Amino acid sequence: MGYTVAVVGAGLVGERLVSELRRRDFPADEIRVLARTARRVEIQGEEFDVRVAEASAFEGVDYALFAGTEGEKGAAMQLAPEAVARGAVVIDNGSDFRLDPEVPLVVPEVNADALRDHKGIIASPNCSTTTMVVPLAPLAREFGLEKVIVSTYQAVSGSGRGGVEALEGLPGGEGVYPKEISGNAIPLIGSVGDDGYTTEERKMKDESAKILGLPDLPVYPTTVRIPVHTGHSESVYVETTREASLEAVLDVFSNAPGLVFSGDKDDYPTPLETVGEPGTYVGRVRVEEGSPGAISYWCVSDNLLKGAATNAVQIAETLVGSRV
Amino acid sequence: MGYTVAVVGAGLVGERLVSELRRRDFPADEIRVLARTARRVEIQGEEFDVRVAEASAFEGVDYALFAGTEGEKGAAMQLAPEAVARGAVVIDNGSDFRLDPEVPLVVPEVNADALRDHKGIIASPNCSTTTMVVPLAPLAREFGLEKVIVSTYQAVSGSGRGGVEALEGLPGGEGVYPKEISGNAIPLIGSVGDDGYTTEERKMKDESAKILGLPDLPVYPTTVRIPVHTGHSESVYVETTREASLEAVLDVFSNAPGLVFSGDKDDYPTPLETVGEPGTYVGRVRVEEGSPGAISYWCVSDNLLKGAATNAVQIAETLVGSRV
Repeated sequence: MGYTVAVVGAGLVGERLVSELRRRDFPADEIRVLARTARRVEIQGEEFDVRVAEASAFEGVDYALFAGTEGEKGAAMQLAPEAVARGAVVIDNGSDFRLDPEVPLVVPEVNADALRDHKGIIASPNCSTTTMVVPLAPLAREFGLEKVIVSTYQAVSGSGRGGVEALEGLPGGEGVYPKEISGNAIPLIGSVGDDGYTTEERKMKDESAKILGLPDLPVYPTTVRIPVHTGHSESVYVETTREASLEAVLDVFSNAPGLVFSGDKDDYPTPLETVGEPGTYVGRVRVEEGSPGAISYWCVSDNLLKGAATNAVQIAETLVGSRV
Repeated sequence: MGYTVAVVGAGLVGERLVSELRRRDFPADEIRVLARTARRVEIQGEEFDVRVAEASAFEGVDYALFAGTEGEKGAAMQLAPEAVARGAVVIDNGSDFRLDPEVPLVVPEVNADALRDHKGIIASPNCSTTTMVVPLAPLAREFGLEKVIVSTYQAVSGSGRGGVEALEGLPGGEGVYPKEISGNAIPLIGSVGDDGYTTEERKMKDESAKILGLPDLPVYPTTVRIPVHTGHSESVYVETTREASLEAVLDVFSNAPGLVFSGDKDDYPTPLETVGEPGTYVGRVRVEEGSPGAISYWCVSDNLLKGAATNAVQIAETLVGSRV
């Protein structure tokens, strides 16, 4: 006896929510794909009759996974309460509920415990946040964190199909980015606030503080879009409370849940190699010269998978107790 | 009455040495292009009879600008002493002499004074170093520097024509990079040493220490190649000795030599916009939340111009007293 699962959205993340549910053998008797308009779609060889996303479509649904259309008129704000009212547990990939103190913001490898207190809605973090916290959490546990400085190398699929079309020079990509993205690097994702941070950087700061349970940790991100299709990379520098030898750091990363790490100094991940992979990859690990509490590394994950769909499905798995 | 100038190399940097000498009206009666093989080349509409780079070709040369073929068998190691013996002053873009205590390593906006002690050979820094030190130097002067953390976004033309061919998928690009560069980000430039740093990162550390005259300054770089043709970008985080308000930092950047900076928080440079421009561009300047001595910014320059040819020609200009 399995569950009835609704997937809300049929874009890049919506498609991957369906394919991850299937690939990970989530115990679903029915996957119901909901979107703005009814149509027929094929996902990984399986056909789905897309139904219109409206309140009644959530009747009988156990888990409703929202792909992440945000804002007042987005699916999550409009329909998540309706889904909860009908008995569903909502897992939302969008940003609407992430900082709501009533809503757990969860990366299962890091803070699965937070799921205990959910009130029907659970949020999955922004893709750049998820990539960051998976290696940060074991460092925080083992050594304590004093400060995090991170520069991102973010893929266009983080902006949905429009981002991919912008990279490919297709008409659907017009206006998605403030400047040409092909052959360029754009150090502004979202918009710049009065505090000087972009909305994307603000998400990385506020969401990581909540997930790690470290509200006072200084996190200083610079978020940059680069001409990569899929796979967010991050150059991370961390200062730890307790001194950490290189051996100790390599040991922590080798045993950290969700991390793929070989420990070989010449072995490093790239976005092109992590596309389609569910894990978070780490490489270029070093303890900075003369500073035993200063650690640098490079990490990469597929922004549509661990950065979105895989994390959401992992949350659902944790809730049904099948696995993390 | 002008000078006889030799340009050694006819690759991407060699071409730009010639075009920068012309564009900046360097007082040259003759520009003699030397390379491995004799041939005829056209640079910006002007034809040059390329002569073979050998000792005798430096007879009568006042300034010899080497494009930067490095190593024991490279032009600089083989021929720079021959040029000096014939009375020329050598300005080398390669890495062979940069850390030699007898050789000034110069970015004219930063340490033109170092030229006073030259003994015939002067070195121009690595492209990623030059981009970094132009904004760092005024911060060092005004506030003092405690620590620099920098992540680079480097263009393929930094690897010469082979890098451009690798990005374009042409046969000449095979083997230039350890992994596919098109649609990817490669966090390894050069090779990784036993200390965990790449040769490129080592250059940024050692060269910036020499240029800034701060041998003990902790500089922690992560150097990354991205699919951009030309223009190196850097995400820089700096901790200063004295507290710095945002207004004070904006003021320093607005008045710094060689920097192009509008001060508008929504105005930021990208590599595509700086191609062909001789300056160093800065944007996304902010003082980190709660940390008045922590400053972040984004800087970009054309790696073939300010990162190589323009800087070398500026050194020559300083020597002849024409301008910086």
